[in-house]
Amino acid sequence: MIGRPSYPIESWSLTEHGLDIDDLARSESLFSLSNGHVGMRGNLDEGDPHGLPGTYLNSVHELRPLPYAEAGYGYPESGQTVINVTNGKIVRLLVDDEPFDVRYGDLLAHTRTIDFREGVLRREADWVSPAGQRVRIRTQRLISFSQRSAAAIHYEIEPVGDTARVVIQSELVANEQLPGRRGDPRAAAVLESPLISERHRARETMVELVHRTRHSDIRVAAAMDHIFDGPRSLGVTSESEPNTGWVTATAVLKPGETLRMVKFLAYGWSEQRSLPALRDQATAALVAARQTGWDGLVAEQREYLADFWRRSDVEVDGDAEVQQAVRFALFHVLQAGARAERRAIPAKGLTGPGYDGHAFWDTESYVLPVLTYTAPAAAADALRWRHSILPLARERAQLLNLDGAAYPWRTIHGEECSGYWPAGTAAYHVNADIADAVLRYLWATEDEQFELEVGLEILIETARLWRSLGHHDLSGRFRIDGVTGPDEYSALADNNVYTNLMAQRNLVGAADAVRRHPEHARAFGVDAETAASWRDAAEDMFIPFDKRLGVHPQSEGFTEHQVWDFEQTRPEQYPLLLHFTYFDLYRKQVVKQADLVLAMQRRGDAFTAEQKARNFAYYEALTVRDSSLSACCQAVMAAECGHMSLAHDYLREAAFMDLKDIEHNTGDGLHMASLAGSWIALVEGFGGLRDTGELLSFSPRLPEGLSRLAFGLRVRSRQLRVEVVDSSATYTVLEGEAITILHHGEKVRVSPDQPCKLDVPPVPAQERPRQPAGREPLRFLHQGNGTEVTRAADVHPVDG
Amino acid sequence: MIGRPSYPIESWSLTEHGLDIDDLARSESLFSLSNGHVGMRGNLDEGDPHGLPGTYLNSVHELRPLPYAEAGYGYPESGQTVINVTNGKIVRLLVDDEPFDVRYGDLLAHTRTIDFREGVLRREADWVSPAGQRVRIRTQRLISFSQRSAAAIHYEIEPVGDTARVVIQSELVANEQLPGRRGDPRAAAVLESPLISERHRARETMVELVHRTRHSDIRVAAAMDHIFDGPRSLGVTSESEPNTGWVTATAVLKPGETLRMVKFLAYGWSEQRSLPALRDQATAALVAARQTGWDGLVAEQREYLADFWRRSDVEVDGDAEVQQAVRFALFHVLQAGARAERRAIPAKGLTGPGYDGHAFWDTESYVLPVLTYTAPAAAADALRWRHSILPLARERAQLLNLDGAAYPWRTIHGEECSGYWPAGTAAYHVNADIADAVLRYLWATEDEQFELEVGLEILIETARLWRSLGHHDLSGRFRIDGVTGPDEYSALADNNVYTNLMAQRNLVGAADAVRRHPEHARAFGVDAETAASWRDAAEDMFIPFDKRLGVHPQSEGFTEHQVWDFEQTRPEQYPLLLHFTYFDLYRKQVVKQADLVLAMQRRGDAFTAEQKARNFAYYEALTVRDSSLSACCQAVMAAECGHMSLAHDYLREAAFMDLKDIEHNTGDGLHMASLAGSWIALVEGFGGLRDTGELLSFSPRLPEGLSRLAFGLRVRSRQLRVEVVDSSATYTVLEGEAITILHHGEKVRVSPDQPCKLDVPPVPAQERPRQPAGREPLRFLHQGNGTEVTRAADVHPVDG
Repeated sequence: MIGRPSYPIESWSLTEHGLDIDDLARSESLFSLSNGHVGMRGNLDEGDPHGLPGTYLNSVHELRPLPYAEAGYGYPESGQTVINVTNGKIVRLLVDDEPFDVRYGDLLAHTRTIDFREGVLRREADWVSPAGQRVRIRTQRLISFSQRSAAAIHYEIEPVGDTARVVIQSELVANEQLPGRRGDPRAAAVLESPLISERHRARETMVELVHRTRHSDIRVAAAMDHIFDGPRSLGVTSESEPNTGWVTATAVLKPGETLRMVKFLAYGWSEQRSLPALRDQATAALVAARQTGWDGLVAEQREYLADFWRRSDVEVDGDAEVQQAVRFALFHVLQAGARAERRAIPAKGLTGPGYDGHAFWDTESYVLPVLTYTAPAAAADALRWRHSILPLARERAQLLNLDGAAYPWRTIHGEECSGYWPAGTAAYHVNADIADAVLRYLWATEDEQFELEVGLEILIETARLWRSLGHHDLSGRFRIDGVTGPDEYSALADNNVYTNLMAQRNLVGAADAVRRHPEHARAFGVDAETAASWRDAAEDMFIPFDKRLGVHPQSEGFTEHQVWDFEQTRPEQYPLLLHFTYFDLYRKQVVKQADLVLAMQRRGDAFTAEQKARNFAYYEALTVRDSSLSACCQAVMAAECGHMSLAHDYLREAAFMDLKDIEHNTGDGLHMASLAGSWIALVEGFGGLRDTGELLSFSPRLPEGLSRLAFGLRVRSRQLRVEVVDSSATYTVLEGEAITILHHGEKVRVSPDQPCKLDVPPVPAQERPRQPAGREPLRFLHQGNGTEVTRAADVHPVDG
Repeated sequence: MIGRPSYPIESWSLTEHGLDIDDLARSESLFSLSNGHVGMRGNLDEGDPHGLPGTYLNSVHELRPLPYAEAGYGYPESGQTVINVTNGKIVRLLVDDEPFDVRYGDLLAHTRTIDFREGVLRREADWVSPAGQRVRIRTQRLISFSQRSAAAIHYEIEPVGDTARVVIQSELVANEQLPGRRGDPRAAAVLESPLISERHRARETMVELVHRTRHSDIRVAAAMDHIFDGPRSLGVTSESEPNTGWVTATAVLKPGETLRMVKFLAYGWSEQRSLPALRDQATAALVAARQTGWDGLVAEQREYLADFWRRSDVEVDGDAEVQQAVRFALFHVLQAGARAERRAIPAKGLTGPGYDGHAFWDTESYVLPVLTYTAPAAAADALRWRHSILPLARERAQLLNLDGAAYPWRTIHGEECSGYWPAGTAAYHVNADIADAVLRYLWATEDEQFELEVGLEILIETARLWRSLGHHDLSGRFRIDGVTGPDEYSALADNNVYTNLMAQRNLVGAADAVRRHPEHARAFGVDAETAASWRDAAEDMFIPFDKRLGVHPQSEGFTEHQVWDFEQTRPEQYPLLLHFTYFDLYRKQVVKQADLVLAMQRRGDAFTAEQKARNFAYYEALTVRDSSLSACCQAVMAAECGHMSLAHDYLREAAFMDLKDIEHNTGDGLHMASLAGSWIALVEGFGGLRDTGELLSFSPRLPEGLSRLAFGLRVRSRQLRVEVVDSSATYTVLEGEAITILHHGEKVRVSPDQPCKLDVPPVPAQERPRQPAGREPLRFLHQGNGTEVTRAADVHPVDG
């Protein structure tokens, strides 16, 4: 049973048959549970073996010094790293004195599955101990969407053939030993024993542990309680030490008899609250969960998810793998954001320690575009977190000799944690990305209270930043020099088109908001003159264009640079950043990830159709996709430019990032942006959704092979459903009033009572753009219990 | 006596009357002795108090890890730091059981002086002990130019008034405790106890200590021997421990009696030689020094220096401070280079641990232009060191995905030690600077053997580098993108004019050398095709020009950037790098140090006179001189552009960098480049010397206030003397054959038998260029025992 497992294609679930103990970290990420508040990797219940144990509480981190070989003014000196907190997942099992460990004895069957409509991880194991005792183990695990601090485990053991004495040790463990750090800079720093015990107590079936973090001084309370159900021989004891608590049950089971345990877990954490207050908080949550009971928690879970899927499901006919992948993706994006509640949504959600648990621009640019239309309250909460860290962002701006607020490139708690400023602090576009997420949320929800409480101030402070970051040159152009755009294979360039266009939107958006709310703006010190100067800057924004080539340089001068020698680059030299210096990469035409292409996606209004076509082809030839943030953007613009099969290929690459572990680091946690990207590729790509504040616009068209695409959107206080088949699209208002939309540029009024069916124009056939040698989109050929990966080179010379 | 000391203006010496114990580090640097092989800071003989104890052996360093908050491919992981080796300077004195310490008792008089014609540091102290015993102490210290491993100390003590029992403890001390590291990144990392004892031995008046460095594994042998001369009560003992050796002499001295000690010191060090071999090497050098005796060593020293001054003295009439400063400077430049012998000449020479003891481009661009014409053998040796590290530079180029050799930005031993690549590895101009130094040496000396053994290979490998670093763009221009020029307030820019012009000279110089020596070139794998491709690249080299402003942008796009807000920058915010981020500095028009101006100095042939005038004025308004490498270049170009009083101001700033401690870090060591710069400002500035391989060219003219300038040059196998007075210049061939030179553009033949006196054209009056507010050149008003510093703002509205 141990070896390469299979993952059958299923429409509503992910199931693993078998177990690969050499690749546990990956499956732990795939089977992660989270509600955005608490996260648990899909570690085996018995703790060992593991890839990477992980239990995370949103925002609980430790500090570590950021060292520099050569120091510089303004460099952050303290970094933040997500920590593995007190682990309540562990349930050890002894069968006649033999520990249940899949590496020993015979594992006859092993299955893990998660149904996205239910949010419960189920596992079944059929195991024969080295001494020959066969047992069946069935476990279920959930983290409650409805009770944000609570998790629960349902554990059943049943002997087969012979009577067995079984012992279940249910544990709560702090400061677990973690595997050492790998060389990959994208992995997290490992901190040894970050938790200091403050209290431990065991009583009957309950254990509480309270710790605080050594340097960041965050107090963490964890508590567990249990309900056992078994034969009359059942006996239960409990015990605690500073870093561990045990509740132990033992019973003699005859074949057919079952020992059943329900374990309830609850967490509380705070930078401020006292030990008794936090202990009480955790135990209160525990009592509530126990009161609800296992079945009650499962029922709440189903109800929460039913509501989500009813509004937000994406249906894909013709590509069953993508159907599964996009539901997997939406499920995980929801898990990351659902209850994050004014805390960050990290790049990996709460599924692993990758990137140190930091949140980046990924949140606003990839995750929030999905949540805004599927779980708008979660999007609002994520932006409320950004609002809450405005004081830190203002301080940072001041340090940087700038006005307004400068948001951190990477952080957990709000302080800048980037230790390499050319690809950190200099990537100022994060500020426009946040403003863009605010504007998108406002356009989608028309939530005026949010605008007054949150949006206005963020827009004002970021507009101030841009005004001070740019300047008018002698020709009257407003330039933003020396910044880093999305593409991390360039840095410190002048007039990055993406940055300038997004700054322009930010400036105009802020000026518009000030016009709408002049009195509130005055309270923030903004008058009409200030707002006018933002409009002027936006008006004069310099967007470089290379007339000779007829394309936009990604940044000024980019198209003059040497083109990377792709022919001489060997496949094993990707990702390039691990095999070439930044010096080498920055000065040449080689693109890690969509940059100008992302500019065209977000600011399509700033480009003509011909420019889009030429630009797309130009950058396709330079883009190596060494970032998981790229494929979905390329999918959207490929679709807009009529390269439908290429768009389909990129959709699949984005959708399979984690399911197929394309970047070989899924074990560090899931790529939330790429998961969100599968929705973006479908909805913005094949649905052609664009929302820039006025009319909601769709330009749906499907690639060959997809026979139907349907998706739901919560937008403008309506619930919309869009269904696309080969030659037509149908728009339905499920809730709310009639709405006027654009369909392929034509205004259409859709009334609640009558779905509106419209023709989809055909896509003219055209030449498929070329990618760098060896960097064509991946092709995945599903073959029973495995996937073969090839590149799509020369498969589709003509696209359409 | 303790308080602000005075330094009278003297033409041939530097003398300090009094002692400032709060500013000892500075005077220790000023009174440093070195021959380029061994260096000793001017620490007080008795060890305490001290600013910074320092004894250095050229190339003896320790390794330390270079940490990064975020790692990157190709980042150097190991740094090299100069270490304070076994200190043989210490001579402790007890007077009736009271230790001689200037902080206690009464210091009636204290004088230190060094005569540049003698190279001996002399000190006299008149001290009354806390118990009331008065003594006179006279010490002398030298590091031999003629015996490179040897140093000697002459120590005399004489009681005044009463009979005194004195004890002299002469010591050899390893692993001295050093003051902690300051926050300034320009200071060195302090390594605790870098030396591990391998052997110690005391016998009669002699002690040997052998150590090796912990990580770099360099073995260091130090030995001392003594000759005592005193009354019959004199008794001598010796003793050793692993890290210390003592030779102790005691005597009862009546008033007028003297106890005299001569201490001989010798060092040997090696990465390869065995312990016995090194011990023998040090003791052999010690025997030779003792055999020569104190008077003999002093005589050799005088002879060595007499020869140097005869050839290389610079005479300045009309500015006695500059006269003193330029001799001080030449003396220290000679000390740094004289016996460096195929080891590096660090930025601080062997006078302090600043910049970790690293050598930079300073050596080739500032120090070697002086040594080439004054001590050409030392210049050749410095370049032989560069040749010896070619294998490491080739490895580095390969790592960087480049051809040829990439010299390190900073190093002691040859490996790249820069921990911040945008201002380190990316500053590729160091390679052209080295090639330029080779070409200059070849032009000046016509040393064909050097060309074949050393120069050709360096030229070839650096040319290969440039050919691979640049590329032809679609318009056929050869571009060098994404590099950092000399100005460290810009980085990673395209087509830095200095870099491109110097690379052009490098490519042409290499191609010419290949043409001269085709067979030798073939041995290095270079054929005519390769050399032709270098000529092509040089021919097509892109030199950006801003037509609108009529000036050269320092790098492409520079003149489009926002001008730094100088008005809002407060005086205490300089140097800017300690108060603003690199991000802020890099993206604006603000210049730390001559860059385009240096390009005009080195490659004057590439600019018209009008361009020079416009460029100079443009960059004057942007240059803040936060680097000690700037003022001398500005002096040269100010003189060439006819701004004579401005040139004089800059000359003085360069010349007084250390004597007046302008950057407040002279305590870390002397600024060799700025010291060399005072010669450059005089000889290239007011002498107008330019040497680009064909005719030696002079355009002498003096500023108001300087009545006469005379200097000697060793060039083209001749000894030339140039004397400039107000309206004429006289050229004399002192040794060698007749030579044709250019005088203000006119060819003149100077014969050995007849000095050639020529008219100097008058300089038309013109407007003095403006500097940024508050960054005008410094003015120094000498006032008895102190100097008042002001800025030369608005002093000379019209220049000439």
